[in-house]
Amino acid sequence: MTDEKDNDRHKTRMQEQKAKVDERIAAAQEDKGLLLVLTGNGKGKSTSGFGTIARAVGHGLKASVVQYVKGGWECGERNLLEKNGVEFHVMGTGFTWETQDKDLDKLAAQAAWEHSKKLLQDPSIDVVLLDEITYMVTYKYIDLDEVLAALTARPKDQHVVITGRACHRSIIEMADTVSEVRPVKHAFDNGIKAQKGIDW
Amino acid sequence: MTDEKDNDRHKTRMQEQKAKVDERIAAAQEDKGLLLVLTGNGKGKSTSGFGTIARAVGHGLKASVVQYVKGGWECGERNLLEKNGVEFHVMGTGFTWETQDKDLDKLAAQAAWEHSKKLLQDPSIDVVLLDEITYMVTYKYIDLDEVLAALTARPKDQHVVITGRACHRSIIEMADTVSEVRPVKHAFDNGIKAQKGIDW
Repeated sequence: MTDEKDNDRHKTRMQEQKAKVDERIAAAQEDKGLLLVLTGNGKGKSTSGFGTIARAVGHGLKASVVQYVKGGWECGERNLLEKNGVEFHVMGTGFTWETQDKDLDKLAAQAAWEHSKKLLQDPSIDVVLLDEITYMVTYKYIDLDEVLAALTARPKDQHVVITGRACHRSIIEMADTVSEVRPVKHAFDNGIKAQKGIDW
Repeated sequence: MTDEKDNDRHKTRMQEQKAKVDERIAAAQEDKGLLLVLTGNGKGKSTSGFGTIARAVGHGLKASVVQYVKGGWECGERNLLEKNGVEFHVMGTGFTWETQDKDLDKLAAQAAWEHSKKLLQDPSIDVVLLDEITYMVTYKYIDLDEVLAALTARPKDQHVVITGRACHRSIIEMADTVSEVRPVKHAFDNGIKAQKGIDW
């Protein structure tokens, strides 16, 4: 096949693809606040959540973050985003195997949830990241029905991002976009330490 | 079961879990520049890549981004990260179905790759994001062996993040951490427009 014929075929294929893409774009005209879920056992869920916050802030939107598990130590994303106007609320007790105290964990989770509910009622906040909230639902530290009710009643244009493993199916059903991050491999399993700027 | 007994059982379980976690942390002592891959068909790959860049910048690390597909239009993450010292190189031709010109696409891809190679030789750059480079390898616009060689020869402490669907298995084999982002559902498929601050 000559290069010219190859180019022509490529052009025809791409024209067909463009027609399909344009048709899909034309069909997607609804504007609304989205509920995004990043779940699964792979690395990249919180990071993607923070990437979304970076994107939102870059457009001048107002964003707020509640960190339900991590965030008790210095985090690169928090440094940058706080400096750029994002308000953080950090539960700060850390992992359940660090505290080893169920009552304390539950109280801290409920305080973080009370703050989250306020954010979910505030129309001035464009994007809310509830980082690793799924674990709090799984442990029953916060009530699933309350979470569903608060998400349903939130301002119409507010986007919410939820991250964490094993997201409850009722939240997945309610969500607009759901990605499952599957681990193919992880450096940590091969003896490599968590790296500053990459893992925290 | 009384609350007290429940708490004691929780504490014992958490102590066991902490011992396991501590053992894994003790075993993971190697420091090195990581190769991270985010692949799969779900939403959140590039977003996670940009989240990693936000994290790195927040720690005062120097980061550079090459965008192989998107980036031709205004992006929230670019606004924020450029303002905070991240250098962007944008291929800027957009999707192949927009240009409909294979030769032009290939030239643009190779120019972006030449720039990427320079970054991969520069020890002053701590983190390089090669956003959506996988497509360029799939289309054979850039040479896989060159990519593998450049990744292998890069400075020992440099982290690289690669995003895009259908990442070549040779890159996956070389990578330290690989996540596959699987689409569970996507708002766009239900007639919802790409939302500013969330999708771009």
